[in-house]
Amino acid sequence: MMDVRDKIMDREGTISGPRGVLAAVLTPMDGDLAPNHAAFSAHCHRLLEAGCHGLSVFGTTGEANSLSVSERLAALEALLENGVPARTLLPGTGSCALTDTVRLSRAALEAGTAGVLVLPPFYYKGVGDDGLFRFFAEVVERIGDDRLRLYLYHIPHMTGVELGLPLISRLIDAYPGAIAGTKDSSGDRERIKTLCREFPHFSVLAGTETLLLETLRSGGEGCISATVNVTSRHARQVYDAHASGRDDEAQALQEHLSALRVSIEAYPMIPALKALMTDLTGENTWRNLRPPLSELDEEQAQHLLANVPLAELL
Amino acid sequence: MMDVRDKIMDREGTISGPRGVLAAVLTPMDGDLAPNHAAFSAHCHRLLEAGCHGLSVFGTTGEANSLSVSERLAALEALLENGVPARTLLPGTGSCALTDTVRLSRAALEAGTAGVLVLPPFYYKGVGDDGLFRFFAEVVERIGDDRLRLYLYHIPHMTGVELGLPLISRLIDAYPGAIAGTKDSSGDRERIKTLCREFPHFSVLAGTETLLLETLRSGGEGCISATVNVTSRHARQVYDAHASGRDDEAQALQEHLSALRVSIEAYPMIPALKALMTDLTGENTWRNLRPPLSELDEEQAQHLLANVPLAELL
Repeated sequence: MMDVRDKIMDREGTISGPRGVLAAVLTPMDGDLAPNHAAFSAHCHRLLEAGCHGLSVFGTTGEANSLSVSERLAALEALLENGVPARTLLPGTGSCALTDTVRLSRAALEAGTAGVLVLPPFYYKGVGDDGLFRFFAEVVERIGDDRLRLYLYHIPHMTGVELGLPLISRLIDAYPGAIAGTKDSSGDRERIKTLCREFPHFSVLAGTETLLLETLRSGGEGCISATVNVTSRHARQVYDAHASGRDDEAQALQEHLSALRVSIEAYPMIPALKALMTDLTGENTWRNLRPPLSELDEEQAQHLLANVPLAELL
Repeated sequence: MMDVRDKIMDREGTISGPRGVLAAVLTPMDGDLAPNHAAFSAHCHRLLEAGCHGLSVFGTTGEANSLSVSERLAALEALLENGVPARTLLPGTGSCALTDTVRLSRAALEAGTAGVLVLPPFYYKGVGDDGLFRFFAEVVERIGDDRLRLYLYHIPHMTGVELGLPLISRLIDAYPGAIAGTKDSSGDRERIKTLCREFPHFSVLAGTETLLLETLRSGGEGCISATVNVTSRHARQVYDAHASGRDDEAQALQEHLSALRVSIEAYPMIPALKALMTDLTGENTWRNLRPPLSELDEEQAQHLLANVPLAELL
């Protein structure tokens, strides 16, 4: 993956990390709801070939919090054994338990992934910034490895936990380099612009490809998105047009990309993507979701397949 | 523990399970934030001696979701080795991951606990009743043991997940006996009354001792409460007065008990209880909390210790 820049700290303290279009990778599962390692690896290879710069496995879209720690570790190992390059991976390692987050993050670091994407602990609500700071500080210090590149995963509609700018600033100040960036799934474009402006040595990736071009123009790194499981070609075109200064073309491509996203996001996101993958690949392994998520019902699935431009996807 | 009735199903399908006053037991931790098994076991014994009918370890108060599965299993094993009777325990076994919940619940069942207290999967929000039903159904079916007594843990201000009455009804109908009861931490007295009325063969335990007498009068089983870590004597007096028909005395004791609770709940609950335990026992192990929870600051702690009737606690 030539486009995933090496993660180095230059003389000004700038971090170069995952940049561009990253898929929040779906996790295919067998009928017994165990991750299907072969289909998972094949999908990762397909996404890289279709233009993804990187792969954020084990996030919200990957149903990672519905998997045990050992299931996540085994699936990561399988990806590496099946030739998915570690440097393309930005695995989610978040959990409510400090010890789980440390264990998962350490394993990812040792495997050579580009970084780790870490949720705030999301069981307790209203704990305040001191508790959240202490959680991330403990993670960084327990790992105790200069190679750590931790990306803060901000997705308050799932976690119920807000990562405010004062907290982020405090973490960057305490652990420059280690606190490397954020995936921002708030959908708040002003927040993304502010993050880019206020924290120049901090990577900002939007949680939807709808904001890809806008984020790049603001100085952010790109996006990590669920729908990129099926829109990666189009997202990559936006990225490339922007990178080569073809601004009008980038804008037109972004509008097309956003329309594709909108056609999907009318449905429950993860079930809809799994329904699309089932249809597009003909593989039944995509049909399964771990509870509490459920398959689309028959009517929803038919409506989805009739209303998205299938020929443009995957 | 003579007061924990054996869990048997009688000819009418009535379940007898944990009844009375249960503490949502705090987990003492060493300076490295590992559970302190000796202090944990000693506290469990102390609570039983002080009048608790049972012990709900590994709940919200026990910071269980801040512990890994293996830490929870090791702590359970330590309690049993240290002579805490399995039949007095109603351990929390909830987790976002189906496989973790099954593993923890199976271990509790094999240890002979009175039941298991299970959170809904709490990462995804707005998933709908079908997904939640399927989660609990998978737990029951994967465990596949007639001895299972699963208590639904309803605490929507933490989980962001509502366990509505139609869902509970559907679960009871599908798995009578196995779906044995609920801990209701909604604080909604009308909901508790409705649960008692609508589901006569289902145990209802309020999440606060403030509602102990009211719940017992409505036909519920009792309470499971954080503050019972320090109010168990008083809560037991309420239970006993009610059980022997001394209604006026029960009411007066309840008012006193509620006042004790109110004096504590003005502070962040779990930090406040750990501050109280530190003061009451003189043991430093009670001082520690896993992030994202934090100790009370010095001013809060002094205010707390000056404003609660310490001599009446523990």
